[in-house]
Amino acid sequence: MQHDTATDDAGPTDDAGPTDDAALDVLGIGNALVDVISSGDDTLLDELGSEKGAMTLVDEVRAGELYARMAAGTEVSGGSAANTVVGVAALGGRARYIGKVRNDQLGAVFVHDLRATGVDYSVEPASTGPATGCCLVVVTPDAQRTMHTYLGASVHLTPDDLDHEAIRSARILYLEGYLFDPPEAQAAFREAARVAEDAGRTVSITLSDRFCVERHREALIDLVDHHADLVFANEEEILALYEVDALDDAVARVRHHGAIAVITRSERGSIVVTEHDVLTVAARPVDQLVDTTGAGDLFAAGFLTGFSRGFDLQRCAELGSVAAAEVISHVGPRPQADLAALAGDLLSG
Amino acid sequence: MQHDTATDDAGPTDDAGPTDDAALDVLGIGNALVDVISSGDDTLLDELGSEKGAMTLVDEVRAGELYARMAAGTEVSGGSAANTVVGVAALGGRARYIGKVRNDQLGAVFVHDLRATGVDYSVEPASTGPATGCCLVVVTPDAQRTMHTYLGASVHLTPDDLDHEAIRSARILYLEGYLFDPPEAQAAFREAARVAEDAGRTVSITLSDRFCVERHREALIDLVDHHADLVFANEEEILALYEVDALDDAVARVRHHGAIAVITRSERGSIVVTEHDVLTVAARPVDQLVDTTGAGDLFAAGFLTGFSRGFDLQRCAELGSVAAAEVISHVGPRPQADLAALAGDLLSG
Repeated sequence: MQHDTATDDAGPTDDAGPTDDAALDVLGIGNALVDVISSGDDTLLDELGSEKGAMTLVDEVRAGELYARMAAGTEVSGGSAANTVVGVAALGGRARYIGKVRNDQLGAVFVHDLRATGVDYSVEPASTGPATGCCLVVVTPDAQRTMHTYLGASVHLTPDDLDHEAIRSARILYLEGYLFDPPEAQAAFREAARVAEDAGRTVSITLSDRFCVERHREALIDLVDHHADLVFANEEEILALYEVDALDDAVARVRHHGAIAVITRSERGSIVVTEHDVLTVAARPVDQLVDTTGAGDLFAAGFLTGFSRGFDLQRCAELGSVAAAEVISHVGPRPQADLAALAGDLLSG
Repeated sequence: MQHDTATDDAGPTDDAGPTDDAALDVLGIGNALVDVISSGDDTLLDELGSEKGAMTLVDEVRAGELYARMAAGTEVSGGSAANTVVGVAALGGRARYIGKVRNDQLGAVFVHDLRATGVDYSVEPASTGPATGCCLVVVTPDAQRTMHTYLGASVHLTPDDLDHEAIRSARILYLEGYLFDPPEAQAAFREAARVAEDAGRTVSITLSDRFCVERHREALIDLVDHHADLVFANEEEILALYEVDALDDAVARVRHHGAIAVITRSERGSIVVTEHDVLTVAARPVDQLVDTTGAGDLFAAGFLTGFSRGFDLQRCAELGSVAAAEVISHVGPRPQADLAALAGDLLSG
């Protein structure tokens, strides 16, 4: 853990930690998934028995049943932390990813799309076992996404897949809470956090999903309270973490442990909670809200990019808002427009 | 061949042919492909050695080389005739498809997307041999698409895959010129045309691509002049077919063989050439021209839907314009909006 205290104008370079020798800005670890995105309405969600806006884990059989009932779709590389590192690379950051696919067609798509965006990736694909994981996404007319994840090969991510040297060389380690679902990946999560912490790097995590929080509350609270420097959550997730109903109560709870908490609130923007301050940052307006898939992932991408450069927290959150606004204006969880150009002075000024 | 003569107000129901007992409106046969769509500029096309706007056949090795140099992309079911039958189904027509995939991940995606749109499909996937075919598409900022096709499993479509009963039951058989590339598929093309002709059904073909026409000119001329009732081509393709420079010369050549020729001219709309008349139909304006992939396929979908209902040729072409306008306003070769709603009175009035 790098930050013991932080204020709203103190980025990582004002703090301890050997950030200057970093070969990477952000190293992300997550479940490697290809998204299968299609349109549907609330009636379809009812028929599928799906919890709107949430991520539900499904096995292969259930995934097949759901897919058979979904409309014609689009396949596009996804995975929460993968989306984030792609966003970091799109903003000019040096990013690396660790996550597991199989050596199948969708695995090849996933790897191609990462590398084509400039993200370093060198995890050996599994040559046996389940297929590359996928996330069946139903986007409703209100642009909400409801997700059903078949983890597939991503359950085979183990501590052996970690490149310690790479983790030590990254200013920020970024871990998705979803990694807690596959047991071996959870072990990899913990080991990666330890390696980064020992190297004096910034450890950041995202809580990922309300139900994910409920499945792993105790372990996630321990991480947030004692190991993470930077925590990303949406309002629902942070409330679920501390089992409280009011945001103020969650804020009061999270601020006394030294971590900076970045809480996203959809169109109400975000708040950045430090020990001594609560910053409020507006969302960027969008012309057309199409698909919220990847909104949190890209917010994190913008924030982390700014944080890795030592920008103040306000500017970090504004970068997050720019990246999130881009990704929710089209179908798919990764940027399509030139994020660096959209960020403009916020990035380069 | 069903039509010996046709005029601009004579659709198929005014003509000979047992159309009333038809269980299907359109049966399409083509190379089953999944599109891999990414953005690129003219410099990339130069580096790839690609002919802008054309479809180039590539082998597996070359496909791998091209893919490695392409940007992160989107995978979406494609295949020219498949796009067309999907459009017919979206407009409320009863459509069926014949084409070959492998039993792999992209093959499953292809089959799912067809069936989810309401297209009948029951061809057994190949369990050995090459992977499901794919089309690597580079979309340039001018919305032009440049295609590189690895035929993969689609070369294994053979006459054995034809369902004669289904072909006889369809008002219109629709065949893509691309089928001439794989030798066995060409044999299937010829057999399907013969079965439909013998059953008194409408035989329609699309010339598909200028280079495809050059590879198979003699055979395609024979088909257009002696077997097809309805021929779809863009201006470039019809000029290439007859090796002429002026559209008038191509029109003069095509009109004396009894087939109706539907020639698309991008933003200049289309012309419908019959023995006695040449109809000119305007293109539908689009707010935003994004990606021309599927423009010809969807034009054919609209036209065929109208033709199967006995609409006059003007109305058929207007339906084609509506469907084409939708598909060029977004990335991907298949409709995303409700085509039937967009067509409105043109379809139901």
